Amino acid sequence: MNGSAWHRHELRVRYQETDRMGVVYHANYLNWFEWGRTELIRDLGVAYRELEETGLLLPVLEAELKFRQPARYDDLIVVETRIVECGTATIRFENAIRRAGEGGELLVSGGTKHVWLNAAWKPVRLSREAPALYELLQRHCGQDGG
Amino acid sequence: MNGSAWHRHELRVRYQETDRMGVVYHANYLNWFEWGRTELIRDLGVAYRELEETGLLLPVLEAELKFRQPARYDDLIVVETRIVECGTATIRFENAIRRAGEGGELLVSGGTKHVWLNAAWKPVRLSREAPALYELLQRHCGQDGG
Amino acid sequence: MNGSAWHRHELRVRYQETDRMGVVYHANYLNWFEWGRTELIRDLGVAYRELEETGLLLPVLEAELKFRQPARYDDLIVVETRIVECGTATIRFENAIRRAGEGGELLVSGGTKHVWLNAAWKPVRLSREAPALYELLQRHCGQDGG
Amino acid sequence: MNGSAWHRHELRVRYQETDRMGVVYHANYLNWFEWGRTELIRDLGVAYRELEETGLLLPVLEAELKFRQPARYDDLIVVETRIVECGTATIRFENAIRRAGEGGELLVSGGTKHVWLNAAWKPVRLSREAPALYELLQRHCGQDGG
Repeated sequence: MNGSAWHRHELRVRYQETDRMGVVYHANYLNWFEWGRTELIRDLGVAYRELEETGLLLPVLEAELKFRQPARYDDLIVVETRIVECGTATIRFENAIRRAGEGGELLVSGGTKHVWLNAAWKPVRLSREAPALYELLQRHCGQDGG
Repeated sequence: MNGSAWHRHELRVRYQETDRMGVVYHANYLNWFEWGRTELIRDLGVAYRELEETGLLLPVLEAELKFRQPARYDDLIVVETRIVECGTATIRFENAIRRAGEGGELLVSGGTKHVWLNAAWKPVRLSREAPALYELLQRHCGQDGG
Repeated sequence: MNGSAWHRHELRVRYQETDRMGVVYHANYLNWFEWGRTELIRDLGVAYRELEETGLLLPVLEAELKFRQPARYDDLIVVETRIVECGTATIRFENAIRRAGEGGELLVSGGTKHVWLNAAWKPVRLSREAPALYELLQRHCGQDGG
Repeated sequence: MNGSAWHRHELRVRYQETDRMGVVYHANYLNWFEWGRTELIRDLGVAYRELEETGLLLPVLEAELKFRQPARYDDLIVVETRIVECGTATIRFENAIRRAGEGGELLVSGGTKHVWLNAAWKPVRLSREAPALYELLQRHCGQDGG
């Protein structure tokens, strides 16, 4: 599948993210996906905060997660993120959560699909609303992330 | 599709669950799915806490969510949950998050798949490990939730 | 000390609120304090959401907590809340988190102090900005909660 | 006041940490205090995870927070932490949350007090239970953080 190169963002598992099973509570991985998206976009030169300040919103339409191995307290984790579809109405990200370091065991995989909205929560065409951003994403998205 | 009857659990959206977009942060719906499962099982006469105390764990293998409409601060919400598959190794729940009251607009739908583990995190056959629970789930699961 | 009667709100400890120590992660009690305040105010006939919609904000200025005993997963908990000071610029709540049921062992105590702001985050005098609410709180606050 | 030098840990405000007031939900600062403690201790050469693995627990006895200015989404934040008391039974940390960069406006200040417990949740004397750690903390604590 085509898609952008994988962006890597490192984090450390916090105490609050664990539950009484001794591992990371599963909903937290969905937060981590979001951190990955934010940092990928920042690396492209766009702060998501600034996007919102121009009146664009990018809420989540769909999410899916496969949990393979648990992360544990204080683990160093890498959140890998790439863009796999970037249309003018929607955008799709793919994520892989790995243990940091050599080998980088895969813990959780999945992704999210989003829709571009304006401040009134109406769908917009990104190519018309923010053509420079649309171009930037197109160029990035076309790269083969293989 | 066969499956158990829908179980309904009501909750109110808390301030902390909102984000600066003014709506519920998306990862919280995954927590709500879990509350729904817990209360469904409690209604069958089984406290999930007691399950864990007997040495059974039921971590999440897969989750998927479709976000249709946002929930907002202080909304009354109904979490609908039903069991759609209950094998001896895994169990699958389906969820629908609705606004409470007449009509009950659908906000989020999705579900989770789980695996039965023992305290050493090894897969077990529920029919052998906890036959009474297995029978209970089988009887419940066979009901048509239509 | 004078103050309003204790308001009681019941909740059940959720899996996500636990941490790997097997107990409720300490920052969650601060959320529970907020749920207590919200429900106390609702009982007075005022939804905090509606307050915000009229342009009033009530952010936290100070918080303090004493942790005596831990709450655990699936425990039934009572959040007790009362108003202990209600000036025209600030308001102070006191909280006690107890195990539900006879005896109701005290788990966490503490409280929060808040300031009335307008939508521009400027301090306001509640007696002038929302005199009906101010009167309501004064009447309630004057009751002896002993 | 005596106490250790301030330890500084940087973080970025995440979307989930904001609420519909557009700022960081207040209970999150208490998490940030914990991240500060963990990183301070790590800098002394001790991973808190390893402490727990030796059977020591350090739950929070008391917490207090003063909220001065709100942090906002995507802000770069510095969590400053120092040890202000380190007896053999309890330890006290002080925290200051600042905006990163020149000047570093103070957003939240406060602190936490903790008690050393063993795995059975009984208070222990650190000087007897873990004398090397006790010595390390004593040496660190004696420094003037002025």
